[in-house]
Amino acid sequence: MNLKLWGGRFKQSTDNLIESFSASVHYDNKLAPYDILVSLSHARMLQRQNIISQKEHEAIESGLKAIQEDINSGAFEWKQELEDVHMNIEAALINKIGESGKKLHTARSRNDQIATDMRLYLRDIIDQSSALLQGLRSAIIDKAEQEVDSPVPGHTHLQIAQPIVMGHHLLAWNSMLQRDNQRLMDCRKRVNISPLGAGALAGSPYDIDPQFVAKDLGFDAVFNNSCDAVSDRDFLVEFLATAALCMVHLSRICEELILWHSEYFNFIELPDSLCTGSSMMPQKKNPDIPELIRGKSGRVVGHLNALLMVLKSQPLTYNRDNQEDKEAVFDGAETLMNSLLTLTPLIEQMTFKRDVMYQALNRGYATATDLADYLVRIGIPFRSAHEYTGKIVTHAISLSKPLADLELKDLQSICPQIQKDVYQAISIEQSLAARKHHGGTAPATVRIALKQARQDLQKESVRSS
Amino acid sequence: MNLKLWGGRFKQSTDNLIESFSASVHYDNKLAPYDILVSLSHARMLQRQNIISQKEHEAIESGLKAIQEDINSGAFEWKQELEDVHMNIEAALINKIGESGKKLHTARSRNDQIATDMRLYLRDIIDQSSALLQGLRSAIIDKAEQEVDSPVPGHTHLQIAQPIVMGHHLLAWNSMLQRDNQRLMDCRKRVNISPLGAGALAGSPYDIDPQFVAKDLGFDAVFNNSCDAVSDRDFLVEFLATAALCMVHLSRICEELILWHSEYFNFIELPDSLCTGSSMMPQKKNPDIPELIRGKSGRVVGHLNALLMVLKSQPLTYNRDNQEDKEAVFDGAETLMNSLLTLTPLIEQMTFKRDVMYQALNRGYATATDLADYLVRIGIPFRSAHEYTGKIVTHAISLSKPLADLELKDLQSICPQIQKDVYQAISIEQSLAARKHHGGTAPATVRIALKQARQDLQKESVRSS
Amino acid sequence: MNLKLWGGRFKQSTDNLIESFSASVHYDNKLAPYDILVSLSHARMLQRQNIISQKEHEAIESGLKAIQEDINSGAFEWKQELEDVHMNIEAALINKIGESGKKLHTARSRNDQIATDMRLYLRDIIDQSSALLQGLRSAIIDKAEQEVDSPVPGHTHLQIAQPIVMGHHLLAWNSMLQRDNQRLMDCRKRVNISPLGAGALAGSPYDIDPQFVAKDLGFDAVFNNSCDAVSDRDFLVEFLATAALCMVHLSRICEELILWHSEYFNFIELPDSLCTGSSMMPQKKNPDIPELIRGKSGRVVGHLNALLMVLKSQPLTYNRDNQEDKEAVFDGAETLMNSLLTLTPLIEQMTFKRDVMYQALNRGYATATDLADYLVRIGIPFRSAHEYTGKIVTHAISLSKPLADLELKDLQSICPQIQKDVYQAISIEQSLAARKHHGGTAPATVRIALKQARQDLQKESVRSS
Amino acid sequence: MNLKLWGGRFKQSTDNLIESFSASVHYDNKLAPYDILVSLSHARMLQRQNIISQKEHEAIESGLKAIQEDINSGAFEWKQELEDVHMNIEAALINKIGESGKKLHTARSRNDQIATDMRLYLRDIIDQSSALLQGLRSAIIDKAEQEVDSPVPGHTHLQIAQPIVMGHHLLAWNSMLQRDNQRLMDCRKRVNISPLGAGALAGSPYDIDPQFVAKDLGFDAVFNNSCDAVSDRDFLVEFLATAALCMVHLSRICEELILWHSEYFNFIELPDSLCTGSSMMPQKKNPDIPELIRGKSGRVVGHLNALLMVLKSQPLTYNRDNQEDKEAVFDGAETLMNSLLTLTPLIEQMTFKRDVMYQALNRGYATATDLADYLVRIGIPFRSAHEYTGKIVTHAISLSKPLADLELKDLQSICPQIQKDVYQAISIEQSLAARKHHGGTAPATVRIALKQARQDLQKESVRSS
Repeated sequence: MNLKLWGGRFKQSTDNLIESFSASVHYDNKLAPYDILVSLSHARMLQRQNIISQKEHEAIESGLKAIQEDINSGAFEWKQELEDVHMNIEAALINKIGESGKKLHTARSRNDQIATDMRLYLRDIIDQSSALLQGLRSAIIDKAEQEVDSPVPGHTHLQIAQPIVMGHHLLAWNSMLQRDNQRLMDCRKRVNISPLGAGALAGSPYDIDPQFVAKDLGFDAVFNNSCDAVSDRDFLVEFLATAALCMVHLSRICEELILWHSEYFNFIELPDSLCTGSSMMPQKKNPDIPELIRGKSGRVVGHLNALLMVLKSQPLTYNRDNQEDKEAVFDGAETLMNSLLTLTPLIEQMTFKRDVMYQALNRGYATATDLADYLVRIGIPFRSAHEYTGKIVTHAISLSKPLADLELKDLQSICPQIQKDVYQAISIEQSLAARKHHGGTAPATVRIALKQARQDLQKESVRSS
Repeated sequence: MNLKLWGGRFKQSTDNLIESFSASVHYDNKLAPYDILVSLSHARMLQRQNIISQKEHEAIESGLKAIQEDINSGAFEWKQELEDVHMNIEAALINKIGESGKKLHTARSRNDQIATDMRLYLRDIIDQSSALLQGLRSAIIDKAEQEVDSPVPGHTHLQIAQPIVMGHHLLAWNSMLQRDNQRLMDCRKRVNISPLGAGALAGSPYDIDPQFVAKDLGFDAVFNNSCDAVSDRDFLVEFLATAALCMVHLSRICEELILWHSEYFNFIELPDSLCTGSSMMPQKKNPDIPELIRGKSGRVVGHLNALLMVLKSQPLTYNRDNQEDKEAVFDGAETLMNSLLTLTPLIEQMTFKRDVMYQALNRGYATATDLADYLVRIGIPFRSAHEYTGKIVTHAISLSKPLADLELKDLQSICPQIQKDVYQAISIEQSLAARKHHGGTAPATVRIALKQARQDLQKESVRSS
Repeated sequence: MNLKLWGGRFKQSTDNLIESFSASVHYDNKLAPYDILVSLSHARMLQRQNIISQKEHEAIESGLKAIQEDINSGAFEWKQELEDVHMNIEAALINKIGESGKKLHTARSRNDQIATDMRLYLRDIIDQSSALLQGLRSAIIDKAEQEVDSPVPGHTHLQIAQPIVMGHHLLAWNSMLQRDNQRLMDCRKRVNISPLGAGALAGSPYDIDPQFVAKDLGFDAVFNNSCDAVSDRDFLVEFLATAALCMVHLSRICEELILWHSEYFNFIELPDSLCTGSSMMPQKKNPDIPELIRGKSGRVVGHLNALLMVLKSQPLTYNRDNQEDKEAVFDGAETLMNSLLTLTPLIEQMTFKRDVMYQALNRGYATATDLADYLVRIGIPFRSAHEYTGKIVTHAISLSKPLADLELKDLQSICPQIQKDVYQAISIEQSLAARKHHGGTAPATVRIALKQARQDLQKESVRSS
Repeated sequence: MNLKLWGGRFKQSTDNLIESFSASVHYDNKLAPYDILVSLSHARMLQRQNIISQKEHEAIESGLKAIQEDINSGAFEWKQELEDVHMNIEAALINKIGESGKKLHTARSRNDQIATDMRLYLRDIIDQSSALLQGLRSAIIDKAEQEVDSPVPGHTHLQIAQPIVMGHHLLAWNSMLQRDNQRLMDCRKRVNISPLGAGALAGSPYDIDPQFVAKDLGFDAVFNNSCDAVSDRDFLVEFLATAALCMVHLSRICEELILWHSEYFNFIELPDSLCTGSSMMPQKKNPDIPELIRGKSGRVVGHLNALLMVLKSQPLTYNRDNQEDKEAVFDGAETLMNSLLTLTPLIEQMTFKRDVMYQALNRGYATATDLADYLVRIGIPFRSAHEYTGKIVTHAISLSKPLADLELKDLQSICPQIQKDVYQAISIEQSLAARKHHGGTAPATVRIALKQARQDLQKESVRSS
């Protein structure tokens, strides 16, 4: 058995080797629809400016459309020796329509062409990511509504801290993802600017109309500086930074799903169809989807890093290093979108075990803060109240009792001012209801927050569509 | 000589060790002015809501102001055993004003307090970074104006590509930095939201008024979800991502300065006072500032990475891991601001060697594209024109001559359609002047771009002040 | 109150600004003892080679020793305007001994000097990190010995998978850290090579003896190429990569400690003195140390990244960018060492709750694999056995019973071949004892592994001391 | 047949989305030859230990070999619904040989299986990377030999510093790559350890022989701890760290090639067949290969980052996050190997322009250090000599003359002790010849270094083959 994966490669001719090393068509052909759109628009402009004739324009247009059809039908043959998506399409065009095809590249360069392609591609990706984010947020808000009255421990340091309702917790997830969407929209403003007309780096000596193609392709604005236009990859970095942070948010959500699904927390039931088993251990029901997404956060952060490092120290204008931007962004975009898409049904289909969540509240002295606050309300300064409560908790732990099961005289032996109304103050229901200010966890307040969350989502959907 | 740096540490008592490991006061005391502002505002709110009395409020206010004065005068003693900036100030307050001081921490937690401090701090950093960016851009635009008529090679692949004017090149720098400023302003929107009132994670059972403190501290809005408010560190990530990309821009600018300052390019003269010599080589005049800034781009990217990794997989809400956010952000902010500040006088004081830049244009056949475009204008399809030009350049190289020195008959022997007017077409001046569309390098166009750049800068200054 | 942190900085004179931006003495003075050692050795060599006189050598030697004493006593005044540790010490020497002091820098450059300083520093750091690793491993092995008979669930996907003993789990930690130590030792080989004599980049025209200083300073070998010697920062990257991976190991260990310390797992008791409370919630006992260490893993990975990015694309030989190596390495080393040092007493003092760990085994059908293996032993192919077991587990879940509480007839109704001896096969004790091959979790095997672990540790201690 | 081998536990069918999100067979089928090797060895062991019969073993062996042939011939159909390489091959085996096939997975888990596959794969990758490194180093050493007498400026800060010979510079590249090879070999020690027998995490209750399979598969040792064996991904991190540093070295080499190939340095001629042209600028001959490799350094650093982040905070033992290790390592390995392979012919075929390199030495006052050293030799302390030389260089610059063209009386007017022999001291030839100590740039010394470099390379080839 020959395990030398590379055996063949060693024997490759140098030309072949170089060709396959520098070719990008095997991944940048993903840009073909954008590249054709750009060429169609460029040709329109060339004709309007009388740089090519009406007839040449018609030939180019029908040629490009035929090529798009060939690509759609799978008939188009991508050739590595033609290096990239641009050269493949241009060669096919010349092959189809002859001399006129050679005129398409007038007044442009691959440098402004690829920048335009990538911006159109990323605009689409952003719009689709935003839609997927909205789908996920919608699922989260629905689930939050279902659990708006379900008490559960809130944690700090993974320790039981204070009672909250699960609906409130889930809306925290929505808040994270809402910011991700805002960042995507801010990034989109800087993506949606046309670099077409910047040429190789200096602009074009032809009487071109960069504003026309910008408008024709749906861009909001046109480049201001040709050197910047061909060397700028900021929009890709900004997208990857936004995607990386969103993936980190998903990793946090997934961490919680994994914890809640473990036998120890046991807060949720995940649907069988979204879990996998073990090849060896028949009892296992593993939360693979959240684990995979959690892991993939590293992947997108890696791509962000890679691109920042690619750009570091590059003198203007275009350098071939920038070919490395594509795979990082393509994979980053796909990872983000797949993760959002996959997490959504999992959220939709998971169910909460309300009794288990409620029981957990007794384990952790979750209303100790409420006891301290009770003491403050009856006139004890906060720092002293904090100390009294510490002593009471220690006492309760020594008796293995929840706070609410301590007798009044025990409480009074530590802090004589305590009265019978303390029991109401430290009940879970009272603890929750008391936090009724804007942003708090009182179920009534969370209901208002839910409504607001739905309105925001609605507004953002309208804006981005 | 004892080189064991760590000798002492090994003998430390465990308590001491843990204390120094977990203390943050040696760096978070930088937040003291913000922490005091937050406490002043919180106390005002407590009094307005009748949670503390008028008298208690007055005591707290004057106590906090006295502490700020102690800090200003250097009389304040920071104690490691009090762990962080919050506890140091609170202890000092109690020490100064007694029982009333113990009431300040009513209805808040260090979790919402630190989040508020950091947001106020970062808002200032963003405003100052924006001002520094404007200072640097202003210097660049001034320099661009001086060099609006100075021809220089534009490069792709670090090869001489086409003539541009240096003013155009410098405005490309301005474009990069303008985007950085836009990103800072977008980030600021998400920074300037108050988390005060979120408590430890669940909000507060007191009748607090989160909107009041938000407004009082100049925030644009108030948190919507208490769990999110105490665990959100997005704004720090977004700032570091923005700072990292800006530093990468500076690394690109500095790379060019280093190249231009080398004996090989020799395009610029840097002022002696901003260069350093060698301890060994007396002739050296090293571009240390650009080198340091170039290196520091790695530093800020490292901090961005660190913070993304810190946040990865954290379950809600606050975890102590987040203490790690501070040094990364503090150092990232300082690195960015120092780099901007230091680069500015260097740009202001550097001078361009116009003759050297002009001579370089002859070396690289920079107007070969213009020759191809000339051929297109006389009716040869672009791809064929490109081939003819390639042959002419090869011929010129074999004769070691610039394009303009080839004889007409030589040109015609390769492409018979060429006429005498070709010499005008391939002159540097004509090449430049022809690129006169929006965003192009024609000096007249660059003059318009300069005006626009100044207007933008002016507008942004108004907005951010 | 003036919150403009940077107000002062804006008004700074340019010279001052540049000076403080490029100075490194505020952190590289940590290298002073190494710098002096290097100078002492260099001076010895200069004298042996008759480049300086006996008398000059004596003056230099006593001057340097006096400077070291000044540094030790705190009397030495570090001056920012003298830029770095080297210039500060050299200036002090000239100040102390006059003209002879000016001869010390003969036949060397700061370029080879700093490289030598850093290698000596890092050699010490590696040796101390290795000692700290051994301290931590020793604590882990001791704890493993105590828990060699304590059953606990082993997890995959954070789901209960199979019974193991805690001693076995803890030895997995030791295995990770053992590899870290091996990597440190491998790195040390490449650190311990002398660059002294490489000069600025080309070597020295004096009749120097690089081998002498190499040997004199305890290096294993001398540089082979002067250009490489001054530009090589590999050893720092390799150290940071090793430190980063070790920190990731610590983050995994700390994640487990945090889980085990949560009320849900409740497997361990951490000592009060190593936990902290909450400013607001009196009942909290937070695992701050593990959380901090977990967070700090991001910090060291960030430094690794920063340094790789600093080095990327640097042409030979020395560039000022490399000044950025120091703070990254200093902080990375300190973070690693402090984390190791702080985790050790925590491991030593934590106690395991054996009854809780044992009870957890019943929750998760941990011996389901043993049931499948029992079926295989009575002749059913593995894949079929796996399916039968799945059905039995589903049945047990529907009855809310552990496997061992199912009745024989129930089992037989699913798989008729099952006999009474099945109950022994699926007992926890039997499950553990059966995994008795090398590397398995049978307590008897773990005892052997413990012995081996101690022997390895002993051997490594001898080697590294 | 039910394709979900773990289907017994589940009642619901998996939807398509989840299937494609979690499937890995489209990339991990690269491991098929290793997976089959592992299964062959595992089956041999099972038979030797009487866990399966002779006949079953024969059926499994011939089945696996037939599958390998199907894979080789392209007849094997990979199915996404079977998730990964292991399940695809096992299902095919059961399909081919029936019941006996179901026994292959006895006493193992996918957890130890994948770890074994990856280690075998990486061992091959390391050996091939090492061979490629040797190929590149051999090309570098050959080129260094050709240029052993070619003076060229050595640079610090990209400024001309001192004369060196190009052969010396090239050997610095070899030194970097030699360390990379050492690191690969150190990493290999930790890769080449068998995890087979660790099962899911706890080992196996069968009477297995882990040492047999370890030896059978050519491993140096066997795992010591089953929990560690299935969760350890250190070897992948260590490989990526080594690959990342090697790529950074290549980025430094490529940066120099790009500089040298620019019209400004003009030190080298790259072969046409390894450069590319421009779609727009006919005169361009771009160094695309070095640019691509320079960019790809970011890619591998990104993968390193990604994997460290994936591992951060993972509790033991196996978690599905680790599926993310494969693509990072596969792509990192391929990027490294392709870069090494592609750079080699470029080095082989480039030629140096010795006259241009020599002329550059006059521009930069490269022998100023030699002048200072001359002054030291005639009795002036180094620091004073450094100052005199500074003045002389300033004077020369003001006259636009190289040092050697200054008149003796001019020199003496600045430093009266200077004599006529100064001209010899500051000649390039003398400057080079004087640096004749070990590691220096004197051509005679470089010849010795060349010999040593060849011997080291030879020794390493023997060791790694």
